[in-house]
Amino acid sequence: MSRSPGRKQENHKISRELFVLTYGALVAQLCKDYEKDEDVNACLDRMGYSIGIRLIDDFLARSAVKKCRSYSETADMIAQVAFKMYLGVTPSVSCSSAMGNEFSLILDKNPLVDFVEELPAERASLCYCNLLCGVIRGALEMVHLAAEVTFLQDRLKGDAVTEIGITFLRKPEDKKHRR
Amino acid sequence: MSRSPGRKQENHKISRELFVLTYGALVAQLCKDYEKDEDVNACLDRMGYSIGIRLIDDFLARSAVKKCRSYSETADMIAQVAFKMYLGVTPSVSCSSAMGNEFSLILDKNPLVDFVEELPAERASLCYCNLLCGVIRGALEMVHLAAEVTFLQDRLKGDAVTEIGITFLRKPEDKKHRR
Repeated sequence: MSRSPGRKQENHKISRELFVLTYGALVAQLCKDYEKDEDVNACLDRMGYSIGIRLIDDFLARSAVKKCRSYSETADMIAQVAFKMYLGVTPSVSCSSAMGNEFSLILDKNPLVDFVEELPAERASLCYCNLLCGVIRGALEMVHLAAEVTFLQDRLKGDAVTEIGITFLRKPEDKKHRR
Repeated sequence: MSRSPGRKQENHKISRELFVLTYGALVAQLCKDYEKDEDVNACLDRMGYSIGIRLIDDFLARSAVKKCRSYSETADMIAQVAFKMYLGVTPSVSCSSAMGNEFSLILDKNPLVDFVEELPAERASLCYCNLLCGVIRGALEMVHLAAEVTFLQDRLKGDAVTEIGITFLRKPEDKKHRR
């Protein structure tokens, strides 16, 4: 099931409802497959990673963005260009560490949970949208940025907002870039 | 995981690429879960059905279409309004029975297979997009139309086009309508 090189670039939009319901079917299937929420979360993250490493080409081709020169620029790019392009929403971004490598994407409204009111009681540890974390992680890795991406808050769990935390993992060669 | 009554109706579009890759992850997971293609197909159909019975409300609300007065009108509605709205493509429609209850939706281009070149040899009987059949069947059932919906041709299997067959199942009370 490899990527077709000849696919056309027209008409990139589809209905969000169909996507949201299909995503819900995916999560429901994984909940059948795995008893532990942690395993479902890990599987969603892995699936997202596989998607991210393929989606990055599409993103770079369509967005025509230039190389980011800082983690801050990268976080803004994810929020303002990538989220907007793929999910039709723009999270706000805040930097949450003095080191300048931890960022939060805050979503007032999470488009993936349109049809979901709350998680079932027996699935309290489920990170319903964990696919997104994997997508971000995979896409970043393809532009040579290692990162940890996790949900820090989730409205589905009663939090006031949905917050995705991105921690860029500094590599040894970062030091020379900071000269 | 019930439907939120308060969800807003703005910004209904998302990127097709993300949907297509997420759908691919779903099919891949089912291929892990089920050895037989027939079981994967049946599962995709069931999932689609569950989606269709929920999506119909969204469709009726957003399309504001009037009640169809014939199977032919219904088939046209599915192709020209529903497919356009949800997948951004418009299949052509042909009636394939003298009885007037069998229709084909012909897709020159199937948006769900953008990243798929061909099925693996060991999955020759997989109806990759069978979710769509279930969605149509479920949505039709909610407007009191029983139908069988299956893939008749599939470009993924080497056919020239992708063809979805819809057979409306006549009910006893149909006869009085035909007076």
